[in-house]
Amino acid sequence: MIFSSRLIEDAVNAFSSLPGIGKKTALRMVLHLLKQDREKVENFSEAIIRMRKDIHYCSQCNNISDHPQCSICSDTSRNAEIICVVENIRDIISIENTHQYNGLYHVLGGLLSPLDGIGPDQLFIEQLARRAANGQVKEIIMALSPTIEGDTTVYYLSRQLKDCAVRITGIARGVSFGGELEYTDEITLGRAIAKRLPVDYYVRVSMEPTSEKI
Amino acid sequence: MIFSSRLIEDAVNAFSSLPGIGKKTALRMVLHLLKQDREKVENFSEAIIRMRKDIHYCSQCNNISDHPQCSICSDTSRNAEIICVVENIRDIISIENTHQYNGLYHVLGGLLSPLDGIGPDQLFIEQLARRAANGQVKEIIMALSPTIEGDTTVYYLSRQLKDCAVRITGIARGVSFGGELEYTDEITLGRAIAKRLPVDYYVRVSMEPTSEKI
Repeated sequence: MIFSSRLIEDAVNAFSSLPGIGKKTALRMVLHLLKQDREKVENFSEAIIRMRKDIHYCSQCNNISDHPQCSICSDTSRNAEIICVVENIRDIISIENTHQYNGLYHVLGGLLSPLDGIGPDQLFIEQLARRAANGQVKEIIMALSPTIEGDTTVYYLSRQLKDCAVRITGIARGVSFGGELEYTDEITLGRAIAKRLPVDYYVRVSMEPTSEKI
Repeated sequence: MIFSSRLIEDAVNAFSSLPGIGKKTALRMVLHLLKQDREKVENFSEAIIRMRKDIHYCSQCNNISDHPQCSICSDTSRNAEIICVVENIRDIISIENTHQYNGLYHVLGGLLSPLDGIGPDQLFIEQLARRAANGQVKEIIMALSPTIEGDTTVYYLSRQLKDCAVRITGIARGVSFGGELEYTDEITLGRAIAKRLPVDYYVRVSMEPTSEKI
């Protein structure tokens, strides 16, 4: 792309370094910002700098946080007997948005993947084992991606934690709400038939979506 | 969306104010920046501030520019006898990328649209009329969108400029290269048949794409 301005080119290059943003989209963003008040653009820029400079990772669960301990871990109204193990911070946000969970979290920082050179030492597994053994935790929910890496990690973690007196569970597998059976893959559909549920469970869950908050 | 960090929330809100960016995409961008070196994030932020603060609009053609006069207007190797009239800055970048044009530009800043309250006074039309009458300009090419507003604007401009001794032309209309006739709209296809070209013109253009640079 040919720009008649070096300033614009620099800004477009900055935006197009973001994931999923090409030069054309970056240019649209830059021209949008160019039309805004200078103050608004300064606020935009400051929000980014401040976020990068002042962010902490929670000393307990590795969630991103404004303080050394995150707002979830320091919330005493949450159930500290349950830990939900997730791959990354985005998964915490997704689960929080369901309003179905009131326990704590533990961010692993990835999934075991020998092919990509990610072994147990690269993940926050030791920290999880320490939390599991603190006497307060009763259940650990594995909320990892339903992939080979996810299942491998769940298997590895359950072995590591087998001596702790905690119940280890995994999030339910089955067909997605709103999905069409015709387009559901064979493994999912096969397992969903094998692991079928009593129908009254369906009704209970869909009638009272928040009654199950844990 | 529920974030456990105010800093992240501010940054996500900043990004999601950009056109076409929702909260999920904004979050992906923010978490990407969070993983970068602090220096890189500072450069990102500075490129935006600098762009907004130091940008000029060319005093002649209204193109964005690092200097009071843009790099195209101040390039003496360009043909100052032709002015290409465009709606906005993005169109200049698109035309420059074709490498087919070596004249100057004039950014109108929009199209006439009475329904949206955009009349001649909101556009840089007077400035264009003054340039057209400077004695040096021989041709004005209207490169506006092929829409009702675009055609209305071309018609209005051609009336305004009718007393200047300049040739007024418009970019060619017809079927797009690579498009399928089956999916071409009726108006375009109908006009393309009515305004058919001698076949040797096709061959000439496709064999020597840059021979036509003006």
